[in-house]
Amino acid sequence: MSQRDWSFLIRQFAAAIGQEQVIRKREELLVYECDGLTSYRQRPAVVVLPRTTEEVAAIVQICDREGVPFVARGAGTGLSGGALPVEDCVLIVTALMHQILDIDYDNQRITVQPGVINNWVTQTVSGAGFYYAPDPSSQIICSIGGNVAENSGGVHCLKYGVTTNHVLGLKLVLPDGAIVDVGGRIPEMPGYDLTGLFVGSEGTLGIATEITLRILKAPEAVRVLLADFTAIEAAGAAVSDIISSGIIPGGMEIMDNLSINAVEDVVATGCYPRDAAAILLVELDGLEVDVETSSQRVAAICQQNGARSVVSAADPEQRLKLWKGRKAAFAAAGHLSPDYYVQDGVIPRTQLSYILREIEQLSQQYGFRIANVFHAGDGNLHPLILYDNAVPGALEKVEELGGEILKRCVQVGGSLSGEHGIGADKRCYMPTMFNATDLETMLWVRQVFNPKGLANPDKIFPTPRTCGEAAQAKLSYSTQGVEVF
Amino acid sequence: MSQRDWSFLIRQFAAAIGQEQVIRKREELLVYECDGLTSYRQRPAVVVLPRTTEEVAAIVQICDREGVPFVARGAGTGLSGGALPVEDCVLIVTALMHQILDIDYDNQRITVQPGVINNWVTQTVSGAGFYYAPDPSSQIICSIGGNVAENSGGVHCLKYGVTTNHVLGLKLVLPDGAIVDVGGRIPEMPGYDLTGLFVGSEGTLGIATEITLRILKAPEAVRVLLADFTAIEAAGAAVSDIISSGIIPGGMEIMDNLSINAVEDVVATGCYPRDAAAILLVELDGLEVDVETSSQRVAAICQQNGARSVVSAADPEQRLKLWKGRKAAFAAAGHLSPDYYVQDGVIPRTQLSYILREIEQLSQQYGFRIANVFHAGDGNLHPLILYDNAVPGALEKVEELGGEILKRCVQVGGSLSGEHGIGADKRCYMPTMFNATDLETMLWVRQVFNPKGLANPDKIFPTPRTCGEAAQAKLSYSTQGVEVF
Repeated sequence: MSQRDWSFLIRQFAAAIGQEQVIRKREELLVYECDGLTSYRQRPAVVVLPRTTEEVAAIVQICDREGVPFVARGAGTGLSGGALPVEDCVLIVTALMHQILDIDYDNQRITVQPGVINNWVTQTVSGAGFYYAPDPSSQIICSIGGNVAENSGGVHCLKYGVTTNHVLGLKLVLPDGAIVDVGGRIPEMPGYDLTGLFVGSEGTLGIATEITLRILKAPEAVRVLLADFTAIEAAGAAVSDIISSGIIPGGMEIMDNLSINAVEDVVATGCYPRDAAAILLVELDGLEVDVETSSQRVAAICQQNGARSVVSAADPEQRLKLWKGRKAAFAAAGHLSPDYYVQDGVIPRTQLSYILREIEQLSQQYGFRIANVFHAGDGNLHPLILYDNAVPGALEKVEELGGEILKRCVQVGGSLSGEHGIGADKRCYMPTMFNATDLETMLWVRQVFNPKGLANPDKIFPTPRTCGEAAQAKLSYSTQGVEVF
Repeated sequence: MSQRDWSFLIRQFAAAIGQEQVIRKREELLVYECDGLTSYRQRPAVVVLPRTTEEVAAIVQICDREGVPFVARGAGTGLSGGALPVEDCVLIVTALMHQILDIDYDNQRITVQPGVINNWVTQTVSGAGFYYAPDPSSQIICSIGGNVAENSGGVHCLKYGVTTNHVLGLKLVLPDGAIVDVGGRIPEMPGYDLTGLFVGSEGTLGIATEITLRILKAPEAVRVLLADFTAIEAAGAAVSDIISSGIIPGGMEIMDNLSINAVEDVVATGCYPRDAAAILLVELDGLEVDVETSSQRVAAICQQNGARSVVSAADPEQRLKLWKGRKAAFAAAGHLSPDYYVQDGVIPRTQLSYILREIEQLSQQYGFRIANVFHAGDGNLHPLILYDNAVPGALEKVEELGGEILKRCVQVGGSLSGEHGIGADKRCYMPTMFNATDLETMLWVRQVFNPKGLANPDKIFPTPRTCGEAAQAKLSYSTQGVEVF
């Protein structure tokens, strides 16, 4: 703890938003030490729970005036440490900001506070025949504010895009406490697209306090197909052929044998064959006739690629059953092993076989089992590295292994992150994708919005202190630099 | 002409890119005095025609060093004066940057120089079964660079989105001459979304010199329906009902009686009934079965809303015939009247009847005929105000009338621009949509990329000199301020 006079600050916070919305007790702060990336931990000095834009602004104004760093946190389910506190910071938690502010069905939009849970949006509008498309696996617990910060994806993002494609406008509290509106209630807003800039900026440019989302008409029909393969490459080839045929499924997911057995152990779907090398789940949505025709084509493509069987389900209960294992994949990994580390990388779809071979080889080299789950249509990998944190040095080796996977993704023209963000976890890898000038350009933008660096420090961008000697010389980021990370 | 030593500058430009790529003769500069917004004119001091990123960077570096303003121009078809020169500026014309740099069908992307014409992209990839979705009416002459600058739309943007939804990455020359890459070759790029920020920034943040676009699989089937109505409100109601039914057409266009007769006079399609109050064109694309089923539903919805007839065409030649009049609508307006002014505004779809009544009332009040063409599915209006520039004061009245239409769009929750940009034309209206803090936030971003203000000055943002007294006090923009514009 620094020499900062926290009692003085806390009195100011309490005066601004009320004593009961300020958490200071050590034991109550424990739960806020990390987000979904549990391998990093840092206790915040204080947690505040504002209810309104004005309360967020009041807190941020105090932080700006007193030079106190602050970190925003939604539901704390993020997997890249985007909501990880920094030393001696104020953690601004949006859990009490859970109001639906406005619904406009005619114009297909809804305005919510950031603490609203992803799944509540669809639940709120489903009676009127609408839904909210981005669906992270954590959708029953993650918040819209966190989704905006990390530009979250989900299984339906192949067809419908990630969070940024569904945010029309934001009310923001900037790092100096000013309240601004970006975007609006229609897509066609003139001027710079600051909405797009903020989505995915991981709390480094301000805090979204009101979010206007697009909602879509629920499709007339939905069908899920499950094909099982004796070689994972065959499942990958089926994905490429489906896309090449012009069909755009709502989602396409591949799970490998280890993942299949993990979920069957835990949730016992009964429909994922334990001896399959891989299963491919394909969800088709649209008009009834469209879904039926596409289903037949997808089934044929799977069979042409050697699928042993293709089952399909159109009624909601059966569909849920087919999805159940995929949705439980991360949780099931926790049953396979004392600990697991979820990696999030992207490859061009054509590089699927290559990356699978590399992951297999790295698994053997490092001696850790890796369960693979993919958003296959997008080339978005989620290798789950299984390990035991009680073994000294295991976490470090796992992080190194995760980094090796990412390097290979980037080498073939992919990305460090498909949907989990960079956060605290991956910033040291940013120089593998961006040269010094490119990173400097992003830092200019951060500088202009966050000149004191108080808004979510030490996220997204590499710093010499934490990212090794290669970055010690200012802006010496280079693609060579990665070798030492 | 200022006291600037242009001979000295021109020698530098010629040394950087070659004498023959520098245009200085008065008569040759004439054509560059304006873009598609012909009511504003300003001759540039010099025109340069670079061929590569490095040549653009060399020009911009000279401008930066010598403090010379520069304006980028693509094909010069923009309708908001985004490529209008400023006094004593260098106009950087991308006409010689027309190379297709890379095509990757497997990953559905193409990289082009900015001078590549919109339609060439689809022509280049159509043999392999792909197309580029954004299709401005000017697509056979407008350039991809200009589309990126203005975030152009088109008739297919209802289903597929505007330019920003189709740009994966950009190579940019920043206003100081630095070359940076933003985005990449896949959609999932970490860090700030600078690609989204640049698309639509109208040349005020730099110049795109390489553009990586998404290309889509051409649909299996396409069908166009033409329904004619005795009341334009009925056509609008049909549009709402089609959207509510869950069908998302590729495009939905309404033309009013004046537009219909204009195009029949000029291109004689023979299929737009001259006595109709309005026609509605609906294009459906997708799988054959989907298109057939949707077509029947759309036809039924049109009939339920009182359509006198619904004709449809699936073969390419017949489809082109149905579209021909719509594509020729702007040109036809030029035959109706010595001059016309195209407005570009957006309303929430539910406000269509309201805005039509208002436009009719304004037409009578000001004494100018107005032909209406809409991207109806998006609520994007293109009123064509017909006038004679030879009549003293007519242009001023037309601009005032255009402004009144925009004010009404904004009042009902719409926008100043759907797809033509703000440019020089509409910046005085920006305070009707954004308050002082919102505009200031955009200006911060401009300041960081364009600190000397040399990149496309006097565009997008209001300035006291040109936007009247209401804006004289620095940052006194306010929603009240609009009354005096």
